[in-house]
Amino acid sequence: MERRIEVGILGATGMVGQHFVKFLQNHPWFDVKWVGASDRSVGKKYRDAAKWHLGGTTPENVADLTVEECKPGNAPRLLFSATDSSVATEIEQSLAKAGHVVVSNSRNHRMDADVPLLVPEINADHLKLIPRQQALRGWSGQIATNPNCSTVVLTMGVAPLKPFGLKRIVVTTLQAISGAGYPGVPSMDISANVIPFIGGEEEKMEIETQKILGDMNGDQVRPLAAKVSAHCNRVPVVDGHLVTVSVELENKPSEADLRQAFERFRGVPQERKLPSAPERPVQYMPDQDRPQPRKDVERERGMAVFVGRLRSCPVLDYKFIALGHNTVRGAAGAAALNAELMYSEGLLD
Amino acid sequence: MERRIEVGILGATGMVGQHFVKFLQNHPWFDVKWVGASDRSVGKKYRDAAKWHLGGTTPENVADLTVEECKPGNAPRLLFSATDSSVATEIEQSLAKAGHVVVSNSRNHRMDADVPLLVPEINADHLKLIPRQQALRGWSGQIATNPNCSTVVLTMGVAPLKPFGLKRIVVTTLQAISGAGYPGVPSMDISANVIPFIGGEEEKMEIETQKILGDMNGDQVRPLAAKVSAHCNRVPVVDGHLVTVSVELENKPSEADLRQAFERFRGVPQERKLPSAPERPVQYMPDQDRPQPRKDVERERGMAVFVGRLRSCPVLDYKFIALGHNTVRGAAGAAALNAELMYSEGLLD
Amino acid sequence: MERRIEVGILGATGMVGQHFVKFLQNHPWFDVKWVGASDRSVGKKYRDAAKWHLGGTTPENVADLTVEECKPGNAPRLLFSATDSSVATEIEQSLAKAGHVVVSNSRNHRMDADVPLLVPEINADHLKLIPRQQALRGWSGQIATNPNCSTVVLTMGVAPLKPFGLKRIVVTTLQAISGAGYPGVPSMDISANVIPFIGGEEEKMEIETQKILGDMNGDQVRPLAAKVSAHCNRVPVVDGHLVTVSVELENKPSEADLRQAFERFRGVPQERKLPSAPERPVQYMPDQDRPQPRKDVERERGMAVFVGRLRSCPVLDYKFIALGHNTVRGAAGAAALNAELMYSEGLLD
Amino acid sequence: MERRIEVGILGATGMVGQHFVKFLQNHPWFDVKWVGASDRSVGKKYRDAAKWHLGGTTPENVADLTVEECKPGNAPRLLFSATDSSVATEIEQSLAKAGHVVVSNSRNHRMDADVPLLVPEINADHLKLIPRQQALRGWSGQIATNPNCSTVVLTMGVAPLKPFGLKRIVVTTLQAISGAGYPGVPSMDISANVIPFIGGEEEKMEIETQKILGDMNGDQVRPLAAKVSAHCNRVPVVDGHLVTVSVELENKPSEADLRQAFERFRGVPQERKLPSAPERPVQYMPDQDRPQPRKDVERERGMAVFVGRLRSCPVLDYKFIALGHNTVRGAAGAAALNAELMYSEGLLD
Repeated sequence: MERRIEVGILGATGMVGQHFVKFLQNHPWFDVKWVGASDRSVGKKYRDAAKWHLGGTTPENVADLTVEECKPGNAPRLLFSATDSSVATEIEQSLAKAGHVVVSNSRNHRMDADVPLLVPEINADHLKLIPRQQALRGWSGQIATNPNCSTVVLTMGVAPLKPFGLKRIVVTTLQAISGAGYPGVPSMDISANVIPFIGGEEEKMEIETQKILGDMNGDQVRPLAAKVSAHCNRVPVVDGHLVTVSVELENKPSEADLRQAFERFRGVPQERKLPSAPERPVQYMPDQDRPQPRKDVERERGMAVFVGRLRSCPVLDYKFIALGHNTVRGAAGAAALNAELMYSEGLLD
Repeated sequence: MERRIEVGILGATGMVGQHFVKFLQNHPWFDVKWVGASDRSVGKKYRDAAKWHLGGTTPENVADLTVEECKPGNAPRLLFSATDSSVATEIEQSLAKAGHVVVSNSRNHRMDADVPLLVPEINADHLKLIPRQQALRGWSGQIATNPNCSTVVLTMGVAPLKPFGLKRIVVTTLQAISGAGYPGVPSMDISANVIPFIGGEEEKMEIETQKILGDMNGDQVRPLAAKVSAHCNRVPVVDGHLVTVSVELENKPSEADLRQAFERFRGVPQERKLPSAPERPVQYMPDQDRPQPRKDVERERGMAVFVGRLRSCPVLDYKFIALGHNTVRGAAGAAALNAELMYSEGLLD
Repeated sequence: MERRIEVGILGATGMVGQHFVKFLQNHPWFDVKWVGASDRSVGKKYRDAAKWHLGGTTPENVADLTVEECKPGNAPRLLFSATDSSVATEIEQSLAKAGHVVVSNSRNHRMDADVPLLVPEINADHLKLIPRQQALRGWSGQIATNPNCSTVVLTMGVAPLKPFGLKRIVVTTLQAISGAGYPGVPSMDISANVIPFIGGEEEKMEIETQKILGDMNGDQVRPLAAKVSAHCNRVPVVDGHLVTVSVELENKPSEADLRQAFERFRGVPQERKLPSAPERPVQYMPDQDRPQPRKDVERERGMAVFVGRLRSCPVLDYKFIALGHNTVRGAAGAAALNAELMYSEGLLD
Repeated sequence: MERRIEVGILGATGMVGQHFVKFLQNHPWFDVKWVGASDRSVGKKYRDAAKWHLGGTTPENVADLTVEECKPGNAPRLLFSATDSSVATEIEQSLAKAGHVVVSNSRNHRMDADVPLLVPEINADHLKLIPRQQALRGWSGQIATNPNCSTVVLTMGVAPLKPFGLKRIVVTTLQAISGAGYPGVPSMDISANVIPFIGGEEEKMEIETQKILGDMNGDQVRPLAAKVSAHCNRVPVVDGHLVTVSVELENKPSEADLRQAFERFRGVPQERKLPSAPERPVQYMPDQDRPQPRKDVERERGMAVFVGRLRSCPVLDYKFIALGHNTVRGAAGAAALNAELMYSEGLLD
């Protein structure tokens, strides 16, 4: 597929914006040609507006772009949104109204009934919400969202088990510091410590999971009826959210059934060979002490979710662990895959 | 109470043994006058036999003691056992047979039907197993044990809820590296990482918890019928095991009932004002992000368990977190409190 | 000595202020009865104005004090200043003018020719600057300062060698994150990393060291002529600044001379048995891999400086390492010792 | 250049051996077809003999190789040696005698007068020692070595300044834990700590640096006359050794001269475009707080050394910092580059 699509990044100077810049750096379809940020940065070159917080130095392909206002105007049609939730509602809506395709990592519209909350391997069909969204809101553009970073890991971990009838899920997260952006978590708080609280995170995991795993019912999503209980913790890890999961399943599958389900799990991105899609989106690791954040998070360019330690749970039915890259699969890579899905669906035509 | 009781430490040169030395350093009742270790160390001065791994330097009160064999002979009657599980069975049994009171941190005898597995605030009455142990085994001495370090934190956290009918417990641990002894966890494995597996730990938490919370039934312990499911993880924290807990309770108490239960929880050590007993063994912290290992683990000399974040659980009834000091409340301090309880019970007479 | 002196803390709600609160908690002479902070906090109870960042919870002795403005008025005569350098000049001067004794940890007046920059073991006689200060500035009060946290460690480490003629000093620091206050260093910057730059720190170490080690010449301090070169680095350690030092000495002492000099080093605080003075202010550790921050920093209540690894330097004459507690000996404890010295000198009468 | 050269790895199962496996995984010239290790592993498949400690899982290209004895026999002519120093002398010599080209990371032969200690950008001409080595020892094969990991960083950092007349060097290292192999440094020692001692490291840095920077004088290396003083420290960083350097220079160049020297520095590997050679082997970073281990160590595939913070030194002439990847540029990558150099020199013909 030979195509070059110009894209822009809203909120490009922040930490999430930088993850977008990094992830899209050598993307086979998308060229970052436009960066938007707040007034403070407008008019500056990107390299001057954004102190680069990730490894190395500011990527050359964006370093000399001039930062623009996050408003309709000269921006490309396809915009990735890394805007802060304090301003995302207004920015994203005004751009969608003006015809832009906004692929957002912000939480603001995730739970709107007419906005798809996508994990492409799981619920590509939720894109059917878009026509309703455009009709209801009178928009020529559209907004699609990806989940909270810890939710992606959980939903990818349990989606293969959906055929067995997910009933109850108890999940504890061990989340990396990069999930909190920059400056994010003070080192005085997290060094050699655990912070057993992340504001709003548990609620997001509990409710987003139900929407993502829900089925289309006419032009609406009917949330999965499963109950979800989340315990969220920050740990001194740089990248990678690890979750421990206990699940109750309607049908009583064998352990072998479950392992097979993990290994065979595929979705629309794999069928269509979308460029950011890993061949096997969920990978079971047989070693008794894997996956581990520092050792496994960068595999498959951060786009697969790694599962391990499947065993019986004395309280619910089974327990296991899952790991995903929070700033890739849980943010920039998630949005890129969403955009690839939307493109492949003809939504960018 | 003015008393000086001479005590010895079995396995004194290892990491757990060093924690015993440290905890007992200024104990109001017990004087460490004897240290035992393996052949390699026998005959050396303690300061030479044991490279001191804890803060500061080898405590002066033991530095010049000569390391002895872990055999009956000239050892004091009361012995704390920090022996490795590979040798603990034989060492502890031969000493108990010879009349010694062995207060052990080793796992070897914990699940023996005639050996008390003590958390003095919870099951001081399990000491009633001792006469049966002595009769059955024909020992003039005795063995009492304390639980695995993560089990102590869990059982102290849920014991106050026992009156509400504990039915099901799902627990995820975030355990400190000091729990693995020395050299313990290689830094290449745990730096900026999580190791989601600790050999044997989950089984120990699941089964020890039932015994500890069980009731005496005649001269036996009837394990608590509650189901327990544990997910155990190592995190890059120096001291302090944090656990997230979801519980189902028979009676349906209010959140206020539970908070009151945590705060009012007291046991025999508090009644008898044993020297290592904290005034309030379980302390509820109202801040939304506490307790935290690095900030709270040293409070109350490491002998209290801190609880926080009590809230409804969408899957079971309630969820909360608990924190305890793994090398103090979970090891050396636990054994010291056990010995104090046994003394106060007349078992050392 | 039975005395109770009421004291106040300027900038009490910040991180340094909290260290003052903690250090003075059970001080045998000083009672914190007054806390001052910026407008935002004035009128609130201390426990509400300051989120407590150190271990445990807000100390009870100050929790219910009402935060006051940092202005002359009802404050006690003796004030410890933990004010931010952006406001310290005005606040400290107005209070000194109004008759207060300001014992400051701020950098603003350290290099003023008429302000003592004290390390009591080294230059207690620099207090002779006070009368000149009062005369010149027309103050009934006074300002005395303690050095930058890394400077204290260096100067305590080299002061015992001053009799051998300090000529050149090359020092590299490995500084703890607590030295940067709160929120201080973002965890995304320092986790599993080194930041080889601390703004202004090298200049402070180079120039403050010369003043501290200087001699009184009439009513002025003549800075030490030695050249000092500092390389300052932040490392992922919670408390404790470690420095590597190479020194050139005028006289050519033996290694034994130097070790003796470290061990025998005493100063006015030791002679007068000031309550915060360690018996041996500089302690040489013979183990080849000590001192170490996490293992040694809390010894001697954080008030001693630990030295080790003395050996020949192929470039200058000798090299060694030194460690000190940056928030105790390098901040709150340093100021407390200064105040004790000033009291013992009659300057608080 | 289209060539495939079969190579083997001695000591392939250890941590250094694994780094070799990883670095050579997609090497354009070298194919790992043979792995040797100690008796314990001989006869097993590599994937079973070596628990993989690096990220991800055992590379497929070596996983099914059968581990062989480290003896002459069926091994390829070119062998990379990652053998432990306790056995390296005998193993390497017997193989060199039998005609193998041993490119060693072990320290055993580094300081032998007839063995090149190579940093190809600096002293490619030291390969002239090889004919003498073969003549003296009667070998058909040969041994060449790369320096200790911290020495590489220092020598690459100061080599560009050699034309200005290196006279004295004071260096302090902040070394990553991966430099100590596996299990290496216990987490109880290094977590949130600094270990200010690495056995033998300072001596190696001081003496190896002189040899590497020395000139050929006939068929011998005349060590550089400069004096070097090293302070070596372990810090809680995963990969990347950072050094602070103060240097005295014969000629008194300007700061601009030095920056230019860093930037223009090139060597034989760059001229010959060896596959592992970075285009610019020394790269100056202008940001005031760079380079940093976690943020910069992976750049240029770990093969460049990054320099920064050049400024005047009040004691010697200039000071700066340098960073290099200890397991790549300081071990596996160093050896690979050596082998490429030797190949390009015709020494493998």
